[in-house]
Amino acid sequence: MAKIPVAVLGATGTVGQHFVKLLIDHPWFELVALTASERSAGKRYAEVAKWYLSDEVPEEVAGIEVRPTDPGAVEDAKLLFSAMPAEEAQKIEPACAEAGYIVSSNSSNFRMDPDVPLIIPEVNPDHLALIDVQRKRRGWSGCIVKNPNCTTIVFVLTLRPLLDAFGVKSVFVSSMQALSGAGYAGVPSMAIENNVIPFIAREEDKVEEEPLKLLGKLEGKDVRLAPMRISASCHRVPVLDGHTEAVFVELGRMASPEEVAGVLGKFRAKPQRLKLPTAPEHPIIVSNAQDMPQPRYARNAGSVPGMAVVVGRIRKDPALKNGIKYLVCGHNVIRGAAGAAVLNAELMKAESYL
Amino acid sequence: MAKIPVAVLGATGTVGQHFVKLLIDHPWFELVALTASERSAGKRYAEVAKWYLSDEVPEEVAGIEVRPTDPGAVEDAKLLFSAMPAEEAQKIEPACAEAGYIVSSNSSNFRMDPDVPLIIPEVNPDHLALIDVQRKRRGWSGCIVKNPNCTTIVFVLTLRPLLDAFGVKSVFVSSMQALSGAGYAGVPSMAIENNVIPFIAREEDKVEEEPLKLLGKLEGKDVRLAPMRISASCHRVPVLDGHTEAVFVELGRMASPEEVAGVLGKFRAKPQRLKLPTAPEHPIIVSNAQDMPQPRYARNAGSVPGMAVVVGRIRKDPALKNGIKYLVCGHNVIRGAAGAAVLNAELMKAESYL
Amino acid sequence: MAKIPVAVLGATGTVGQHFVKLLIDHPWFELVALTASERSAGKRYAEVAKWYLSDEVPEEVAGIEVRPTDPGAVEDAKLLFSAMPAEEAQKIEPACAEAGYIVSSNSSNFRMDPDVPLIIPEVNPDHLALIDVQRKRRGWSGCIVKNPNCTTIVFVLTLRPLLDAFGVKSVFVSSMQALSGAGYAGVPSMAIENNVIPFIAREEDKVEEEPLKLLGKLEGKDVRLAPMRISASCHRVPVLDGHTEAVFVELGRMASPEEVAGVLGKFRAKPQRLKLPTAPEHPIIVSNAQDMPQPRYARNAGSVPGMAVVVGRIRKDPALKNGIKYLVCGHNVIRGAAGAAVLNAELMKAESYL
Amino acid sequence: MAKIPVAVLGATGTVGQHFVKLLIDHPWFELVALTASERSAGKRYAEVAKWYLSDEVPEEVAGIEVRPTDPGAVEDAKLLFSAMPAEEAQKIEPACAEAGYIVSSNSSNFRMDPDVPLIIPEVNPDHLALIDVQRKRRGWSGCIVKNPNCTTIVFVLTLRPLLDAFGVKSVFVSSMQALSGAGYAGVPSMAIENNVIPFIAREEDKVEEEPLKLLGKLEGKDVRLAPMRISASCHRVPVLDGHTEAVFVELGRMASPEEVAGVLGKFRAKPQRLKLPTAPEHPIIVSNAQDMPQPRYARNAGSVPGMAVVVGRIRKDPALKNGIKYLVCGHNVIRGAAGAAVLNAELMKAESYL
Repeated sequence: MAKIPVAVLGATGTVGQHFVKLLIDHPWFELVALTASERSAGKRYAEVAKWYLSDEVPEEVAGIEVRPTDPGAVEDAKLLFSAMPAEEAQKIEPACAEAGYIVSSNSSNFRMDPDVPLIIPEVNPDHLALIDVQRKRRGWSGCIVKNPNCTTIVFVLTLRPLLDAFGVKSVFVSSMQALSGAGYAGVPSMAIENNVIPFIAREEDKVEEEPLKLLGKLEGKDVRLAPMRISASCHRVPVLDGHTEAVFVELGRMASPEEVAGVLGKFRAKPQRLKLPTAPEHPIIVSNAQDMPQPRYARNAGSVPGMAVVVGRIRKDPALKNGIKYLVCGHNVIRGAAGAAVLNAELMKAESYL
Repeated sequence: MAKIPVAVLGATGTVGQHFVKLLIDHPWFELVALTASERSAGKRYAEVAKWYLSDEVPEEVAGIEVRPTDPGAVEDAKLLFSAMPAEEAQKIEPACAEAGYIVSSNSSNFRMDPDVPLIIPEVNPDHLALIDVQRKRRGWSGCIVKNPNCTTIVFVLTLRPLLDAFGVKSVFVSSMQALSGAGYAGVPSMAIENNVIPFIAREEDKVEEEPLKLLGKLEGKDVRLAPMRISASCHRVPVLDGHTEAVFVELGRMASPEEVAGVLGKFRAKPQRLKLPTAPEHPIIVSNAQDMPQPRYARNAGSVPGMAVVVGRIRKDPALKNGIKYLVCGHNVIRGAAGAAVLNAELMKAESYL
Repeated sequence: MAKIPVAVLGATGTVGQHFVKLLIDHPWFELVALTASERSAGKRYAEVAKWYLSDEVPEEVAGIEVRPTDPGAVEDAKLLFSAMPAEEAQKIEPACAEAGYIVSSNSSNFRMDPDVPLIIPEVNPDHLALIDVQRKRRGWSGCIVKNPNCTTIVFVLTLRPLLDAFGVKSVFVSSMQALSGAGYAGVPSMAIENNVIPFIAREEDKVEEEPLKLLGKLEGKDVRLAPMRISASCHRVPVLDGHTEAVFVELGRMASPEEVAGVLGKFRAKPQRLKLPTAPEHPIIVSNAQDMPQPRYARNAGSVPGMAVVVGRIRKDPALKNGIKYLVCGHNVIRGAAGAAVLNAELMKAESYL
Repeated sequence: MAKIPVAVLGATGTVGQHFVKLLIDHPWFELVALTASERSAGKRYAEVAKWYLSDEVPEEVAGIEVRPTDPGAVEDAKLLFSAMPAEEAQKIEPACAEAGYIVSSNSSNFRMDPDVPLIIPEVNPDHLALIDVQRKRRGWSGCIVKNPNCTTIVFVLTLRPLLDAFGVKSVFVSSMQALSGAGYAGVPSMAIENNVIPFIAREEDKVEEEPLKLLGKLEGKDVRLAPMRISASCHRVPVLDGHTEAVFVELGRMASPEEVAGVLGKFRAKPQRLKLPTAPEHPIIVSNAQDMPQPRYARNAGSVPGMAVVVGRIRKDPALKNGIKYLVCGHNVIRGAAGAAVLNAELMKAESYL
């Protein structure tokens, strides 16, 4: 099978770097182009990517000339992964979709648009059908598919099986988020050394509204938002990668911590059944250790490293009816961003949208 | 007025060090003795206290010979501040109370005993009346008075005015706790570097039950526990001092963030009216900055540094009826431990128990 | 005595903030103006200074309107403290000196110019005489006086008494420098978390050449550079404030660690004799602890906090003839920058240059 | 070829864990036993090893029952890797060697004994011949072979090619050492958060004397110490793994940074020629980046991750005759400890001592 040629838009940042790593030896996709802002275009990738990963810039891409981020500059690609800042993506992504590209985007724009599929393959793979709605409505030959915010993905992966097994009425989530979520220069060391910053711009809105779409029902051309209430408090801590989230859930019916652990640990979904290359065997790993999940360990969890989330400390919640609480931790840039978009593209391929 | 002679039991640890700092120039109390375990007894204080504060061991105490922790070894003192490990305090504190000492203790034992006053002077000063119950029941001439757990104190300070103004039905609290809470050698650097540890032994139980007593009503010889539900999730982050807590509160009636800010910011209580030396003018400082409170700043807040807590990011909670959410941060070893016990003793003195 | 009106140029950065703190209650100087870049001019100081210190922006300045950095904008001041970036200072400082202002500057430009006094008051107060040379040569009524680089100051304070007592032939210095030295946004947290960055742009050149001027002899209109060799290796570590330096010194004659400790500990100089307000009683504190100096403690050392440096671990050097080695640590922004410039101005005042 | 059965003595600590990882799929060695202190013996490995590595305890060993550290308890092994504390190793290792075991030890005892080979396979493989001297002198059928201290190994790897090409007269080394060097609980987080500890017990002595033996000449039954002078200053910084060292070297003859880079980058030695399984293709990697080597990257360098050291910032030294200075960084627990001992054992096998 010939590989599908792909490009990464906005390839030099932290998310872009993980895209590169995930795509270099991908069995279905072939990385043919990397783009960045005007300032970086024309230079070698190794020169402009402030590589933060602990290994070297992969040889295969180190010498590649970075292209400008423009639909006309990536015509050898068919599928585009977008790690652009939202303001740029807002303009460039529609132009790309109109030009016929499939855009699998991690950027935060358009996520709540009714005809834009917002997908976690284990959670709502059927929402991909919105692609047809989107194409018809907008007259595009390509399309735009989104993955959610990193913090959203990590805990919504656990809500899917809980919702199916017990029902979910309300959720409180309090996050301890990694530095990489803000981008390479996002958090000055002087701001976070020996400190916590209990605020992340626009994060709580995303974490409160995206799950309602993700867990909503596709009815005809629309997603009916899930009938639950979500409240988030988002905080930055001095950790390089890996978002840790304390989750308090009001279930629809009583369930013991053991039952919850069973349901979470056994969870498999379409990406597992389809054996998508970037899908971990177990999207949720339940740890029995009393002090897990910790980001230094959980961020690399899974048969595809960084693609599983780890749940621990499942216990009854004394303040909620049918309440449980637990911790969940996952790699914010892999499962929460680049890996999410790659898995979405793999699902599109498996479902013949690509 | 002659000063009251006081001793610190368990003076070498992190809490003990803050006791020393708060007591050295205290207007009412005179520090006459420091005790520690057998291993340290007989040595100079500066030698055995692994001083973690950023200034030097105060000259006044550096050369003091540490005594063994024993009622017979501190007979020149009348008031004892206890920073002992709970297991030791369990045995030694009753012996001290029986021997006639007033014990103001930060140790976690006995806190929930019905005849032991568990006090935050701004929250429930009237509970001191349990001293009489305790003495009668146990036949002691001295007594034991407790302050709560550090995490408890920080957010319960904010619950008091909310309860009085609006009622409180349920509370969810998710903490990001400082290293000093575990003691000097409590958290190895290899455990927490580039990491979060989302577990603190026995912490959540304390945080869920102590507030019910603190906010309860003294009725005759008993405290009737407050009729509210509390759920806690406690986590350690790489910060030296200062506990940061995300709090979600179901109020008894609707209140806007502005009303809540007003009530919290105006809060004054008995310690302020009595002008107790260690009472901050404002026990709660409300910050309007979008990214506060942060522990590096909040931990020194207040007219008595470290004795005020800082509240920020007050906003509506979308998942609770009459819900609000906010962040609160305070110094876990000052307001949350040593300063708490000193303030309790000042209240006792002002109320003539001393 | 009427206070001398002073302004801080470049008042919003980390050095500017320390200038503000040191000047607010200064006995000789009165802070009348704060300047910043065009972008910040016209706004309130509290709004534009990203305050990193652990206390609040002082009330006295929080509401002050920041002025543009321009000689014409600070005419109510006589003395200017400069914390400008070197490129700007290069242009603005001469204009100020020409306009008659006394400029006490921390900026790195001009430091090695033959007619610019580069001063540490404890090391070479007599070099102030270059002011007359400078004025004559340049036709200025004002003048420019510089303090050295932060890393330079910390160890050169120790070289002065060693040179006088034993002679100094060569010096190797290996630094572990704090984040604040790079400015608030200088080091991204993602760059330094769980890491060391063993490079600081242009730092080693300064550290190797400035001491030769500081320890040189003023002969007529020129400073004859000190006849010693210095080699530096400069490195950034995850510490907020406080530069720690490992120093290996080849002395002119044999001296035991005890002799060296004696000479360093007894060191007093002109600022101490003149009782300058910002001069610490002991510019060098010798610690006998086996594991000191550590930046978390040493950075606040001295009777004027942050103005003394702490020396520890003095021992023979086995690889140098007459060699000794030791550690020295000092606050890079106080003793190494803002406090240095304030002390220089105090010396100028005491010596009637002001 | 049948694999050689091996055991790890002291298998639960940080060095022990790396031994386990390196040995699990080793082509020549088969891990048959893990030992620990009495307290841990009899328990499952996963239960007693406080696993600090970012992946899980390998399945192959998680369930293994830990044995007591005793020659009689590992009779199914022929080769023993020792990660015991020096005091224990002092007693147990001779007993093992007498009982006929080959002991490849990372413990610091005996390293300077004249008849104990202290080996870095790239530096002094011929010193293995001391095994015969040792056996004859002590009447052992087994033997003890040591690798040096972690800090020593990292920079001595660079001295070997410099000595051969240019001569080396004196060396100054200033280290920034990782937390893992002190063991899991060695450095409390409260000691090192926002701090540097410029002292490591007994480290400088090792770093100053071990290189003289390593670079010395084997003459008959003795090693003649290398005629050079070494001075060390050792410091702990908040980094998990990877020692960074600033090195100043007085060469025997003038060499430019380019020549030095050439000699270091081309260095290969016996382990490379023998293609030992744990030998990296290039023991020294020279980086041209202006701000490398950094431990977060360098600690995983090499074709066998963690077994190469990275050199950067090679420049002339202005204070030494024929002086150069540079940075070198390597993984302290892999190249500096467990990997060092494994490579020593591979050399022994290749040289038929095993």
